Amino acid sequence: MKHVVVVGGGFTGLNVAKALGNKKGVTVTLIDKNNFHLFQPLLYQVAMAALNAGEIAYPLRMMLSRYRNVSVFKGIVQNVDPETRTVYTDFGELQYDYLVMACGTKHHYFGHNEWEEFAPGLKTIGQAAEIRRRVMEAYENAERTKDAAEKRKLLTFVIVGGGPTGVELAGSIGEMSRYYLSKYYKNIDPKLTRIFIVHAAPRILQTFSPELSSKATRALEKLGVQVWTCSVVNRIDADGVQVGNERIEAGTVLWAAGVRATSIGKTIGFETDKSGRIIIGEDLSVPGYPDVFVGGDQAHFELPDGSIYPGLASVALQEGLAIGNNILLDAQGKQRKPFRYRDKGQMATIGKNAAIAERGNVRLSGIPAWIIWLGVHVYYLSGVKHRIFVLLQWGWSYFTFGHGARIVNKEWRFYSNPPEPAEPAEKIELVSFPECVFTPGEQSKNG
Amino acid sequence: MKHVVVVGGGFTGLNVAKALGNKKGVTVTLIDKNNFHLFQPLLYQVAMAALNAGEIAYPLRMMLSRYRNVSVFKGIVQNVDPETRTVYTDFGELQYDYLVMACGTKHHYFGHNEWEEFAPGLKTIGQAAEIRRRVMEAYENAERTKDAAEKRKLLTFVIVGGGPTGVELAGSIGEMSRYYLSKYYKNIDPKLTRIFIVHAAPRILQTFSPELSSKATRALEKLGVQVWTCSVVNRIDADGVQVGNERIEAGTVLWAAGVRATSIGKTIGFETDKSGRIIIGEDLSVPGYPDVFVGGDQAHFELPDGSIYPGLASVALQEGLAIGNNILLDAQGKQRKPFRYRDKGQMATIGKNAAIAERGNVRLSGIPAWIIWLGVHVYYLSGVKHRIFVLLQWGWSYFTFGHGARIVNKEWRFYSNPPEPAEPAEKIELVSFPECVFTPGEQSKNG
Repeated sequence: MKHVVVVGGGFTGLNVAKALGNKKGVTVTLIDKNNFHLFQPLLYQVAMAALNAGEIAYPLRMMLSRYRNVSVFKGIVQNVDPETRTVYTDFGELQYDYLVMACGTKHHYFGHNEWEEFAPGLKTIGQAAEIRRRVMEAYENAERTKDAAEKRKLLTFVIVGGGPTGVELAGSIGEMSRYYLSKYYKNIDPKLTRIFIVHAAPRILQTFSPELSSKATRALEKLGVQVWTCSVVNRIDADGVQVGNERIEAGTVLWAAGVRATSIGKTIGFETDKSGRIIIGEDLSVPGYPDVFVGGDQAHFELPDGSIYPGLASVALQEGLAIGNNILLDAQGKQRKPFRYRDKGQMATIGKNAAIAERGNVRLSGIPAWIIWLGVHVYYLSGVKHRIFVLLQWGWSYFTFGHGARIVNKEWRFYSNPPEPAEPAEKIELVSFPECVFTPGEQSKNG
Repeated sequence: MKHVVVVGGGFTGLNVAKALGNKKGVTVTLIDKNNFHLFQPLLYQVAMAALNAGEIAYPLRMMLSRYRNVSVFKGIVQNVDPETRTVYTDFGELQYDYLVMACGTKHHYFGHNEWEEFAPGLKTIGQAAEIRRRVMEAYENAERTKDAAEKRKLLTFVIVGGGPTGVELAGSIGEMSRYYLSKYYKNIDPKLTRIFIVHAAPRILQTFSPELSSKATRALEKLGVQVWTCSVVNRIDADGVQVGNERIEAGTVLWAAGVRATSIGKTIGFETDKSGRIIIGEDLSVPGYPDVFVGGDQAHFELPDGSIYPGLASVALQEGLAIGNNILLDAQGKQRKPFRYRDKGQMATIGKNAAIAERGNVRLSGIPAWIIWLGVHVYYLSGVKHRIFVLLQWGWSYFTFGHGARIVNKEWRFYSNPPEPAEPAEKIELVSFPECVFTPGEQSKNG
């Protein structure tokens, strides 16, 4: 009987467990620091009060209860010794025959950890609640204050980073301020909310085609979001952000810029790339350690052109199934299969009836993309109940223009992640974009 | 134009605002430390993971948006000067013509504030989340540990206090451990969970008739709850509780015993009873201050027999409407009306198909009481959407025996109330129950 230890209950870990569930010859122990699987693609909707946390999180025990050979533990993995095949956790040691690491990413402030306090990221339910609190309290405080400059600052939101999360957050704030909130305040006009996306690259959503990226920019503009490209944030403080020579006074700054893999890869001593991702081979195992597999955002799987697979749920999910399959093949003494990602495309949503979707040469935007976005997200949600409730919440919001869960609690002041081994603030050079360097007089290509 | 300041957005404050909404001659400013109205009667279901917080909390702004003359501010009232008619808040001063105080209660540990850390109460959404975290983590930790004594301790829950909240919490834990959780753990049998209600009086639910109180005890016992009456807790620590000479080792202790009014009544200098409730007259105003009204749990309205109205939602709601009405009458120069509570009865629920309900001489238990309990709670919930979602959650749980929102987040470690002026731990004598004093050899009446 082979013992498989899976670290992390995200898309990869969950699908490893499913692939190995009720299979002969293997037992599985899945460890996660939370007791639930989080449907990360909809987390921004919890932050924006459109969904309750319980609607996108599902207890891992319940999801895996039908597999007799799978055990779930809530715990923290502190270290791994790949030589003795030992996992060290906060509840003791475990021996493995196969280890699967799928711990995902956390936010990365490019050597400025002090920014985290002023600009929370969005990776956990706790952070989503914190973002919700900050956004809703900004409106409450703006309603109370009599100082016009303070009011303007409170009604200013800066999102650093123009990837899918940044775009979704900015779009939601735009939609909320332009439609939902306008009739509830007497001393402020929520439609005057100023929203900025500050993005280092020459265009937002740079993994999409330029055409869709440009459509997304237009859709954001219609919701009152101003997109600043080729713009690097130099400083974030309690009152706003500094972007080159420019200064924006903002009550709320949100971080959607950098992520890096959790530090456990380095702690163990595996070879990692500069973002802390563990380098893996074609069969998804660590070179030199055929009994250790890595998947999802923590894995660096290099493609022939030197790029890596994008940090998408569909990549993590397919890697999980492939790892499970390779463990089964290996345990049966058969040849492992090299992993190939089947491209499911990518999509991002901006607001009601506004999204972009791309798969190969098929590019969609507007209502068709939005409907596909809805369908795909509901389809991939776990459990019939979650699908029904999320559909109901969305249906209600769509037809009433009202968000449901717009409550904040001053007691929800939790913010930081569970304590992790202190890590020195690491200075990482920002990628510089050649398109962003131009001499005066020259037009920006995105101007 | 008379300016009415309402402090607190609970059942009283909300109904004052509704009674005065869109009425001529008055403007209303409602202040609450949260931005939402909380449907307190169902809060234990959030603590027990049966409902999401967003399903029983509703933004005050949205509830009151149809009233042009009502403004809502999220803020904290620090003091009131009834002579100059000034309310001091954390966002400045307000002048009033009429003031309504409806700040409710908080937990009271009978001079043992140090117990709060080990035995949280259930008054706020933050506390509900904390209780949920403790209960679910107890099971997670029991699943992990290899020490049998530790396991037994972790699977032990003590609820101090046998009023409706204590009974509802104990019943829910009983139901959850006996039915829902049993199939999800591999190293523990959740059916072995030990649950105690430790209650100082000779019977639980002492505001109900002895017959119903006894039926509730039986219903609790069927769910595995042991009821200890005439039992006073002497000590609560990180490992359990001391009850007289007896000691229970418990991983989780919950406080449902004492409440007292918020301290603002004393701060202002109004006459209060020993629980901090402000003494009011027949028209619900403070004697000597006809422009100050108090309602709900913060009010001490003495009945001819020396008792006061119970701390029920229906009392608070009726008082709110009556205060609104008296302000209108007063503003029009008419005679105020004395308040009379129209008894709506009382009820408590133990679990699925198990509740008790009493109104005058009509006493119900079991399924009929449970159906009435369901109907009344859904009816009084605010908003069509909340009713639909709560009904769906309940329906789903009823037929699948599965709770929906059973996720915990280690980041939800918030616990204490927002900082309040420090109050000396006040020693209040416990009411001693003559029935609880008996000489050795004599049978307890409830034994």
